[in-house]
Amino acid sequence: MSRRLRYGMVGGGPGAFIGEVHRHAAALDGDMQLVAGAFSADEARSAHQGELLGLDPERTYATFQDMAAHEAALPPEQRIDFVSIVTPNHLHYEVARLFLEAGFHVVCDKPLCTTVEEAEALCRLVENRDAVFALTHNYTGYPMVKQARALVRQGKLGELRKVVVDYSQGWLATRLEGAGHKQAEWRTDPARAGVGGALGDIGTHAENLVSYVTGLELEGLCADLSTFVDERALDDDANVLLRFRGGARGVLSVSQIAVGVENDLSLRVHGSEGSLHWRQESPDTLRIRHADRPAEVYRRGNPYLAPVASGATRLPPGHPEGFIEAFANIYRNAAGAMAARGAGTVPAPRDLDFPTVQDGARGVFFVHRAVESARAGGWVEAGYTPPGG
Amino acid sequence: MSRRLRYGMVGGGPGAFIGEVHRHAAALDGDMQLVAGAFSADEARSAHQGELLGLDPERTYATFQDMAAHEAALPPEQRIDFVSIVTPNHLHYEVARLFLEAGFHVVCDKPLCTTVEEAEALCRLVENRDAVFALTHNYTGYPMVKQARALVRQGKLGELRKVVVDYSQGWLATRLEGAGHKQAEWRTDPARAGVGGALGDIGTHAENLVSYVTGLELEGLCADLSTFVDERALDDDANVLLRFRGGARGVLSVSQIAVGVENDLSLRVHGSEGSLHWRQESPDTLRIRHADRPAEVYRRGNPYLAPVASGATRLPPGHPEGFIEAFANIYRNAAGAMAARGAGTVPAPRDLDFPTVQDGARGVFFVHRAVESARAGGWVEAGYTPPGG
Amino acid sequence: MSRRLRYGMVGGGPGAFIGEVHRHAAALDGDMQLVAGAFSADEARSAHQGELLGLDPERTYATFQDMAAHEAALPPEQRIDFVSIVTPNHLHYEVARLFLEAGFHVVCDKPLCTTVEEAEALCRLVENRDAVFALTHNYTGYPMVKQARALVRQGKLGELRKVVVDYSQGWLATRLEGAGHKQAEWRTDPARAGVGGALGDIGTHAENLVSYVTGLELEGLCADLSTFVDERALDDDANVLLRFRGGARGVLSVSQIAVGVENDLSLRVHGSEGSLHWRQESPDTLRIRHADRPAEVYRRGNPYLAPVASGATRLPPGHPEGFIEAFANIYRNAAGAMAARGAGTVPAPRDLDFPTVQDGARGVFFVHRAVESARAGGWVEAGYTPPGG
Amino acid sequence: MSRRLRYGMVGGGPGAFIGEVHRHAAALDGDMQLVAGAFSADEARSAHQGELLGLDPERTYATFQDMAAHEAALPPEQRIDFVSIVTPNHLHYEVARLFLEAGFHVVCDKPLCTTVEEAEALCRLVENRDAVFALTHNYTGYPMVKQARALVRQGKLGELRKVVVDYSQGWLATRLEGAGHKQAEWRTDPARAGVGGALGDIGTHAENLVSYVTGLELEGLCADLSTFVDERALDDDANVLLRFRGGARGVLSVSQIAVGVENDLSLRVHGSEGSLHWRQESPDTLRIRHADRPAEVYRRGNPYLAPVASGATRLPPGHPEGFIEAFANIYRNAAGAMAARGAGTVPAPRDLDFPTVQDGARGVFFVHRAVESARAGGWVEAGYTPPGG
Repeated sequence: MSRRLRYGMVGGGPGAFIGEVHRHAAALDGDMQLVAGAFSADEARSAHQGELLGLDPERTYATFQDMAAHEAALPPEQRIDFVSIVTPNHLHYEVARLFLEAGFHVVCDKPLCTTVEEAEALCRLVENRDAVFALTHNYTGYPMVKQARALVRQGKLGELRKVVVDYSQGWLATRLEGAGHKQAEWRTDPARAGVGGALGDIGTHAENLVSYVTGLELEGLCADLSTFVDERALDDDANVLLRFRGGARGVLSVSQIAVGVENDLSLRVHGSEGSLHWRQESPDTLRIRHADRPAEVYRRGNPYLAPVASGATRLPPGHPEGFIEAFANIYRNAAGAMAARGAGTVPAPRDLDFPTVQDGARGVFFVHRAVESARAGGWVEAGYTPPGG
Repeated sequence: MSRRLRYGMVGGGPGAFIGEVHRHAAALDGDMQLVAGAFSADEARSAHQGELLGLDPERTYATFQDMAAHEAALPPEQRIDFVSIVTPNHLHYEVARLFLEAGFHVVCDKPLCTTVEEAEALCRLVENRDAVFALTHNYTGYPMVKQARALVRQGKLGELRKVVVDYSQGWLATRLEGAGHKQAEWRTDPARAGVGGALGDIGTHAENLVSYVTGLELEGLCADLSTFVDERALDDDANVLLRFRGGARGVLSVSQIAVGVENDLSLRVHGSEGSLHWRQESPDTLRIRHADRPAEVYRRGNPYLAPVASGATRLPPGHPEGFIEAFANIYRNAAGAMAARGAGTVPAPRDLDFPTVQDGARGVFFVHRAVESARAGGWVEAGYTPPGG
Repeated sequence: MSRRLRYGMVGGGPGAFIGEVHRHAAALDGDMQLVAGAFSADEARSAHQGELLGLDPERTYATFQDMAAHEAALPPEQRIDFVSIVTPNHLHYEVARLFLEAGFHVVCDKPLCTTVEEAEALCRLVENRDAVFALTHNYTGYPMVKQARALVRQGKLGELRKVVVDYSQGWLATRLEGAGHKQAEWRTDPARAGVGGALGDIGTHAENLVSYVTGLELEGLCADLSTFVDERALDDDANVLLRFRGGARGVLSVSQIAVGVENDLSLRVHGSEGSLHWRQESPDTLRIRHADRPAEVYRRGNPYLAPVASGATRLPPGHPEGFIEAFANIYRNAAGAMAARGAGTVPAPRDLDFPTVQDGARGVFFVHRAVESARAGGWVEAGYTPPGG
Repeated sequence: MSRRLRYGMVGGGPGAFIGEVHRHAAALDGDMQLVAGAFSADEARSAHQGELLGLDPERTYATFQDMAAHEAALPPEQRIDFVSIVTPNHLHYEVARLFLEAGFHVVCDKPLCTTVEEAEALCRLVENRDAVFALTHNYTGYPMVKQARALVRQGKLGELRKVVVDYSQGWLATRLEGAGHKQAEWRTDPARAGVGGALGDIGTHAENLVSYVTGLELEGLCADLSTFVDERALDDDANVLLRFRGGARGVLSVSQIAVGVENDLSLRVHGSEGSLHWRQESPDTLRIRHADRPAEVYRRGNPYLAPVASGATRLPPGHPEGFIEAFANIYRNAAGAMAARGAGTVPAPRDLDFPTVQDGARGVFFVHRAVESARAGGWVEAGYTPPGG
């Protein structure tokens, strides 16, 4: 094994859901180690979290600015290789910018940031600094999503015609943000979440999944946004008609008020020769339908899969993998890219297989166009190429 | 048993799919009998079909006009009680009108007809003639669809917020209409199908299912219609954003180019207190999700079901019922209404539980508004009350 | 159409479940007609049932003996072609014998009868009389069961190694027979059901399904029978190890005390090249697993199916068929055999595809050997060839 | 956080499947660290694996005997807290004995060992040394298996009546052991696997799962063992009738020749009041059936679960967990017990929730009785209480 990468975390204090997921994901393969953190804007909470995690107190920082400055000043064999950003959305930009400028690679939670301007600035900065920037659209880390992408690229579905992506959750069906629920609070607060509610939180995942699997580029969209819970400032349900370059059509539907639904992200793609169907809640399975023979059930871990899917799995078939493994694939591949960058070598194909800053910019643009469409009450243009994209 | 009802059929010649379904459905309970028919515009084919069905040759007619006239002239104890119309769409109006005017009840395949004007004329005629008119939106005949409706009415889902209805098929993914496929030919021909392709053929089923289960009334819609198969004149894929009176929102997506998909009609309804999910391909199951306790799987035939669902089933749980039984429920209930009409008695609630001419008018209106929206490229008003509705 | 066959029914009075199923199944295709009946040992109930069914009162008989005698005396163009026997088990033999001797064909509910001696006597009588005798092991009427059999015969599974058949129900989990439940009463009464409880009622279905799909012949078995409900005289749960001629092994497990389980008959067959899985509660689906490529999902109604499966279906794929259609296939095929017998022609292959009197004898033998094994507490021989088998 | 536990591994060299799983599982929570190992009997391979894992070369040992001796000689703040044994079965006993005697805790892969005598010796040794001994029957680490156990203990199923456990795999359907497949080689070799093939490898998992969920104690069994693949020395398929103390009955069926089946362990338990069903390939779901109301679908991560299930999960509902998390729960709980042992405190209930050496002895006894039953061709007694059990 090459040496264990070191990373620091911004955000992810006690009780934060996604920070813990990032830590599990990074720990899974034993090839990277958390050594620093600015876990909370509250200094005591940050210190407490560092202690819980067994960090050197010297490297548990009161602010992310301190962390960037001090880590940059450490000798190369001690300082972090990358920062993992798991704060609420509105801080992503500032933290990412600072660490990129300080010479670090970045793994950042989604959505990338809250405005298109910030997104594009990050695209340029990543390019200028020659940094590795991975955005944790973790659903693309699932092996069977990679298999889906491979089948599309191999032409097994023929010419793509229709995409249906649905991402439903029920956890925001009541006014949780008024009941002291931290996760709900910032996600429904425009100052911290940005202009999109469900749209930003899970709509960007749905958009990214479509883009990753199909390679289709948006051309136009028509969105209907709703806020069903009283006193909520952002959308908690969004339905969007999609038109893609080349003539394919689609429907994207996301909801956080689907009572009793857990985390049901599903994708259907219909081409002239076949159809595919994948559901995140049963991630090891990919269904392929054909015109003239029985449907096939592709399953993770089997020898008949494409290398991109086989390379993304840790267990034999029938030994379920889940959310953390998919998440860990983003970390592992980005770490591979960082190692190649460090060694001056050409990264393996697998090490380029993670969501980029440009993917993030596309997501932010998508959210803004959907909000614009809903405001205007009709179709809007949605074609977009981010800087470097 | 009260006497067996007698019926005649218009359409349903050799090789016609839906005519045979109607005959199976009507035969299932042994309480009605096919005694007359004008099965084809081709006299010889009509006669041949009559012979295959064991009909009296005297009552196999060359034209539906002959049939209406001769049956009306028979003594009451011989003549048909109702006509079953299973022709292509463009003939529904003329046949229905003629038989209504001749004093017969009508069971008609969907969609009701091809223009709103015709639809409204039929509404008025049914009212004037005090006739029973049942439209075979057969999916509402499934017991678990009736259970879904009952749960919504009982308020088990709370206030309705979102509806997602999807009806996907793959059989028209290639240009079947150019290959001598009769079913495909007329369904893709504007002169016989009307202005909607997939929209008219299966979109009306989807619209009707939403209306039946939720009771929600459309207020506005925005449709995106596509024709993916070359040289096809009508839509083969349609995606529609829906707004309902009172604030609920929805998505209706139908396709006949979803390769390998069979007949996948599914409905999800999300309310403030719970969610439901039903799929036509597993019709005996209805899933109910709750905010705070395990999801429940309601199954046809169990004692815990609502009377409207229990009354629509013929077998114990676990002994699968299917398409024909659901279809037969439309026939059986309409027959009950006819019998009550004949006897001058008040029909039982069950005998009023079938899709009406007004439901048909709503479907035709929906298709026309969706086509108008697609043409205009944006949202259109979609509120509508048919005559007598 | 050749003429409609006429049949009479013995048993199936008001409230009897299986009699009504038989009538629905016989009615479905409109090619046979119920014209006579001895529906109950209670003359008034029999007459009432005949009236409900619209029969000529002259042909509603007080006893099945009367019926056999009078029907045999009617002119050929009036009398029944066959009798349908839907009484409790203990009467099957006597009724079948009488009608066979009177020159009629027979459709008989399962199990064939209650003793091996009776079973063998019926085998001989059927042969002597050159009669058609169909036993309604209806589960073999499902198209996808026929497809399973075809795949096995084509060698798609290689050499068969293991069979797992499970038939679970929950309806007898409490002492229903003490609560006035007619179905439960006779099924748990040795005098009317025979020596097997669950074993006779559903174990024979399971045994027959294995035999039909795999063609394997039993060689030995070891059974463990239980009675979980107090005061019940017969087994309500049975688990049986199976050994087949040629080396295949199996497990047969049946239960009527599996609380909340409806009618869950499932079959798995594993061969050297592949595996199959079918579940009665989702009868339109058959799963085939391979060693080296994705599993396949065969679905009823598709063009890729074997003729024996395609010929057993009435609807396109995705339009669910169910229990009644499978049941109707037994009737339809047996009727085809009767018609061929009447016309002196060679029956089509399809018209020979129904469970025979020999299948019934095998079932009765199986039940008796399993009871013997349980009494002896170990393995017993189970090889058997019925007369004419 | 209390300090990170240190562990060493015996076995788990390059290419070994289960060693890697153990390492992932131990790494997941970041609270224990692999610091030593004797990964292979081949010294160079062991050293290479240590290097790949980034271990101090001083602590990569040529033999497990060296490792036990040297680690025991290290100062307490450096030496390992426990050993993880992931060798083929025949070495478990010797390695475990040595490390227990050297004062270490043990985590050992299943089955415990190859003879009942060894198993009982280990039971006594664990007791004498006051050591923590965890056996990785990892399937009991799944949250929904813990929920199943909780529901049984709460009496939600009433009195237990019937258990059906099936564990099917297809990977040994051909003679893989003759094709250089290491995993297959030792698992089919009596000298390394013990007297049971499929029975020892997966049958012990099935037996343990039944025991964990139901608490039922075996009383008698009747086994039928088969070897379908030519030249194989051990069973590759086993079907066992079970009788439990108190009257419950069961069927245990395991196979490694079920072509195309991956790792399909399923458990059904039927009680007088309800039934449960769990499948390892969809581990986040537990189905509960009731006599008189809709079946319920319990899902991991929801607030309505029992504490034992809630405490065993790391992610919100709908974010799939899998095999590694379940495995990690064994490690985490055992580590909790070790920490309590070290601190002289009473362990939390969760820290006692892992399979013990006694569970292991029960498994070994079960395998031997099943082999004895198969040899004898009939029922055998199977009641057993291990030392300390």
